[in-house]
Amino acid sequence: MNGIVSGIIPPLLTPLHENGDVDYESLGNLVERLVGAGVDGIFVLGSSGEVAFLNDTVRDQVIEKVVALVDGRCPVYAGVIDTQTNRVIEHIRRAEALGVQAVVATAPFYAITGPAEIEAHFRALRAATTLPIIAYDIPVCVHSKLAPELLVRLATEGVLQGVKDSSGDDVSFRRLCMLNKKAGSPLTVLTGHEVVVDGSYLAGADGCVPGLGNVDPSGYVRMWKAFQAGDWDRMKVEQDRLAELFEIVFTPIGKVGPAAGVGSFKTALELMGVIKTNIMSAPLAPIADDVSRNAIEKIVREAGLLN
Amino acid sequence: MNGIVSGIIPPLLTPLHENGDVDYESLGNLVERLVGAGVDGIFVLGSSGEVAFLNDTVRDQVIEKVVALVDGRCPVYAGVIDTQTNRVIEHIRRAEALGVQAVVATAPFYAITGPAEIEAHFRALRAATTLPIIAYDIPVCVHSKLAPELLVRLATEGVLQGVKDSSGDDVSFRRLCMLNKKAGSPLTVLTGHEVVVDGSYLAGADGCVPGLGNVDPSGYVRMWKAFQAGDWDRMKVEQDRLAELFEIVFTPIGKVGPAAGVGSFKTALELMGVIKTNIMSAPLAPIADDVSRNAIEKIVREAGLLN
Amino acid sequence: MNGIVSGIIPPLLTPLHENGDVDYESLGNLVERLVGAGVDGIFVLGSSGEVAFLNDTVRDQVIEKVVALVDGRCPVYAGVIDTQTNRVIEHIRRAEALGVQAVVATAPFYAITGPAEIEAHFRALRAATTLPIIAYDIPVCVHSKLAPELLVRLATEGVLQGVKDSSGDDVSFRRLCMLNKKAGSPLTVLTGHEVVVDGSYLAGADGCVPGLGNVDPSGYVRMWKAFQAGDWDRMKVEQDRLAELFEIVFTPIGKVGPAAGVGSFKTALELMGVIKTNIMSAPLAPIADDVSRNAIEKIVREAGLLN
Amino acid sequence: MNGIVSGIIPPLLTPLHENGDVDYESLGNLVERLVGAGVDGIFVLGSSGEVAFLNDTVRDQVIEKVVALVDGRCPVYAGVIDTQTNRVIEHIRRAEALGVQAVVATAPFYAITGPAEIEAHFRALRAATTLPIIAYDIPVCVHSKLAPELLVRLATEGVLQGVKDSSGDDVSFRRLCMLNKKAGSPLTVLTGHEVVVDGSYLAGADGCVPGLGNVDPSGYVRMWKAFQAGDWDRMKVEQDRLAELFEIVFTPIGKVGPAAGVGSFKTALELMGVIKTNIMSAPLAPIADDVSRNAIEKIVREAGLLN
Repeated sequence: MNGIVSGIIPPLLTPLHENGDVDYESLGNLVERLVGAGVDGIFVLGSSGEVAFLNDTVRDQVIEKVVALVDGRCPVYAGVIDTQTNRVIEHIRRAEALGVQAVVATAPFYAITGPAEIEAHFRALRAATTLPIIAYDIPVCVHSKLAPELLVRLATEGVLQGVKDSSGDDVSFRRLCMLNKKAGSPLTVLTGHEVVVDGSYLAGADGCVPGLGNVDPSGYVRMWKAFQAGDWDRMKVEQDRLAELFEIVFTPIGKVGPAAGVGSFKTALELMGVIKTNIMSAPLAPIADDVSRNAIEKIVREAGLLN
Repeated sequence: MNGIVSGIIPPLLTPLHENGDVDYESLGNLVERLVGAGVDGIFVLGSSGEVAFLNDTVRDQVIEKVVALVDGRCPVYAGVIDTQTNRVIEHIRRAEALGVQAVVATAPFYAITGPAEIEAHFRALRAATTLPIIAYDIPVCVHSKLAPELLVRLATEGVLQGVKDSSGDDVSFRRLCMLNKKAGSPLTVLTGHEVVVDGSYLAGADGCVPGLGNVDPSGYVRMWKAFQAGDWDRMKVEQDRLAELFEIVFTPIGKVGPAAGVGSFKTALELMGVIKTNIMSAPLAPIADDVSRNAIEKIVREAGLLN
Repeated sequence: MNGIVSGIIPPLLTPLHENGDVDYESLGNLVERLVGAGVDGIFVLGSSGEVAFLNDTVRDQVIEKVVALVDGRCPVYAGVIDTQTNRVIEHIRRAEALGVQAVVATAPFYAITGPAEIEAHFRALRAATTLPIIAYDIPVCVHSKLAPELLVRLATEGVLQGVKDSSGDDVSFRRLCMLNKKAGSPLTVLTGHEVVVDGSYLAGADGCVPGLGNVDPSGYVRMWKAFQAGDWDRMKVEQDRLAELFEIVFTPIGKVGPAAGVGSFKTALELMGVIKTNIMSAPLAPIADDVSRNAIEKIVREAGLLN
Repeated sequence: MNGIVSGIIPPLLTPLHENGDVDYESLGNLVERLVGAGVDGIFVLGSSGEVAFLNDTVRDQVIEKVVALVDGRCPVYAGVIDTQTNRVIEHIRRAEALGVQAVVATAPFYAITGPAEIEAHFRALRAATTLPIIAYDIPVCVHSKLAPELLVRLATEGVLQGVKDSSGDDVSFRRLCMLNKKAGSPLTVLTGHEVVVDGSYLAGADGCVPGLGNVDPSGYVRMWKAFQAGDWDRMKVEQDRLAELFEIVFTPIGKVGPAAGVGSFKTALELMGVIKTNIMSAPLAPIADDVSRNAIEKIVREAGLLN
């Protein structure tokens, strides 16, 4: 037992007021929606939580608030995303004090590092905390890929307890699952890709961290239960439905990255009345044009999430 | 009916003599092995067939020989890989004359092109032939990605009949399958990734083009039959076994790209006695060191392919 | 003496008729323009010559025609651009027979190769010909970079005699010049970047291969003579003027790669009456919109190349 | 007058004790060395200053100390490097309070942004401060390139006052200089590439920010004076000498990025007795092997910087 749960652990969005401040009432609505749907954990301050846009004070407030809102009904894992080791360790110390159950850390970024430095980085994080550590493999943001062999080796030594794989490399992901299993499964392996979760489960994933799970947590919970029950036809049906819903991220006109992805999740939740605005952190603008908003509304309605 | 079969269509290796000439006796052995295993088609002159290394005379000889060897027992599809439109059309004309059932073409490469030029390229190929055309999406070689929307649109208009997806982008692949299905499935969608075939089938793939299928065609045929029978537990078991076998590509010391991948396939087949050498086309050197060869032998033996 | 001239060696454009056939009359006009301006050599079938778009028959005709047109007034170097070693060697054999003075070859492309294979590739080319070989470093097309150490080592051994650097890496370029000089200058080092030629000369370049030299060969010849005379103020003035002219490549609306670059060179030459059309090889469309054409005309006029 | 000086503005290294704490005595030595050599400004907390590795407390201490050490003898510019707008603004506020003369900010990183967001980012920084802002174009760290047109447009509107170009794209750099000049030179344009400074001056650069300037500030000051005096032969001689010295960054065995670059600068300065250790911030290890250290010592000695 490595201390990281299996199942559905959505990366919590951070709802904002028009002025860019965190909207804690909407955050509370969102947390209740996820917990009520039966998610297995909540991952706060991930990429979907706009972690890179929030200053340290706001990050702390968000963790503190979510820990209080969840109130032990499921574990809370916190992103400790920053450029290099010492800065990440500072985030870990604060997350520890705020009572999270695990931390989620990427490879170093901004300054270029190689495999030796990446390994030294995770070892330094381990030396700094007794909390479980989930390695966050997200090359699109940090521009290096975590090798399956490294991850499994560090897990075997107790340095890492989990992986959130947002690498977009399914071949490597299957290898990670295979090597982890051979090593006695020291890692909880989670996929971060919303529309290939069924295949990830076949490959050996222990769960997923779907940004789209903010919009439809019940869908992901049902897919996970279908997988656990061996009902793979049902699993595929749920995944196909969620893949249709995921089309919302391709509708925003003229937007890339989180402005499109997280932006469409926020817009959907605003339309559904869960959060008050679809405001994004500066310098990102919200999805404001009618064409994009109508396209999102249509897709969300067809998914049965709007009356 | 778009003229492209579903199921298992291995990309045929091109066995060589020590001097680099094609070893047609070994090629015959390999073809018999594949046809005997019940593959649904054979794809000659793909990346695994070292197409980029062969001059036009040799390419023609290989097509001619394989068409004769297969002798109608399954369709033969030929890669018409070259830099830009006019050169590809020349390959298409020769492939037509040599009697293949479809051609497989990439986006233009070497010179940079954008989406408009890629579309014009495929339209020009269509104007040049009545053969079915399979678009080969392989960004690691051509350095551009074929957008799902473009592929489905071209298929709807009759320009394309199939896709071989070696893009390494499973999220895009599911989208391709989804959009294709909504459009009435004008495309036969094939995955080129050996170890995530089960997930690809869930996503909606119509079959696969596995380089590893040269080494173990029966395994891929069994996985396909399990999928068709709805026996997904069996499908996963077969995939896990093939993923173990695929580890041979990670064993060669100091090699990258086809020198490691195709090189390990050839080495396995040489060890199994199917082909005579593991020679690769210049400038690639074969896998010659004992450590790598022994590692491959061990894996192939554990997969039950060596006595 | 390595057999490769210093100075200005423009990569000759390939003028086309409306139907895509080579326009040999326009080609003749262009050759006379370059030779008349006093260029030191002509590089035929480079990227600017649309080599990747031409089939082998056309490639041969272009070489044959240019060799005849130049008629010994300066050396003619021919691109032997193709995917891998054996295909390149075929081009070399034909270029030899057609009477060129050197060949220009890239690293292998399409199939991934590493440093060992790239070295083996150039050694195999050397074994196949006695012509001087110019290594063409163009990562934007072949997606690997030729290391300065490798180039100088191969030159010291007589494998390579020149380099055309289109790598876009000026730091590496200075290193190449420095290492080459320390080794006794076995390489003729040529830059392929039109607007940083003055800096390249300071860094140690022996000349340049400017696509823009098709449009204004005299400007590049003057800049080279100013450099040789130590008149660096003049050199900078000429370069600044040519940098203004190079702005034509940024004007085409909605075009990338050679459709913008070579396309604007052809459009300028058409406007100047040197060639008959600005047609590009399929799948590239010519620059046809008035906004782009007028912008090019304005720049060419300001450069004093139109009356 | 845009408030940013021309000339030599080295990015100050951050010397460390064995335990990783900042060694302020060594920092003082280094500052005196640079100021004594006649540099025109000092850039603290750049990539060479290991900014990404330092927590906010240490960043503030370094700025405070350097401002005090320099004591008005030249301007001090501070890097305000962080992932996204709000975090950067926090750094700006602290840098303002600590008395720097300008701030240096990159495009947003970690989360993907497009051109619109990059523009909004710099506008938001301008709205937050009256200090001059230098845009830091360093795609190798932030993975987006600042377009010359955008930079000049923002400068014309008073949003930006300078650019530090570490983009490795000399073609774009010349264009930036050309467009800036046409716009009335609202930007002070500085190159960050140590070995192509002479070419950058020809292209129109107003100065440079050389990491190697920590090791040999006098060399860069002499080169700048030679350029200003129009003595371009002398300028080239100085640059060639500095390019030889820069070879230290290629000597470290098994290191990449700042572990090689900044690591070799620190090792040189340690060998020269300017700073006490060559320790790097975690997770980077210092250059410790004798082969690498001896190679650095030899180069530094040949450059006349060691007795």
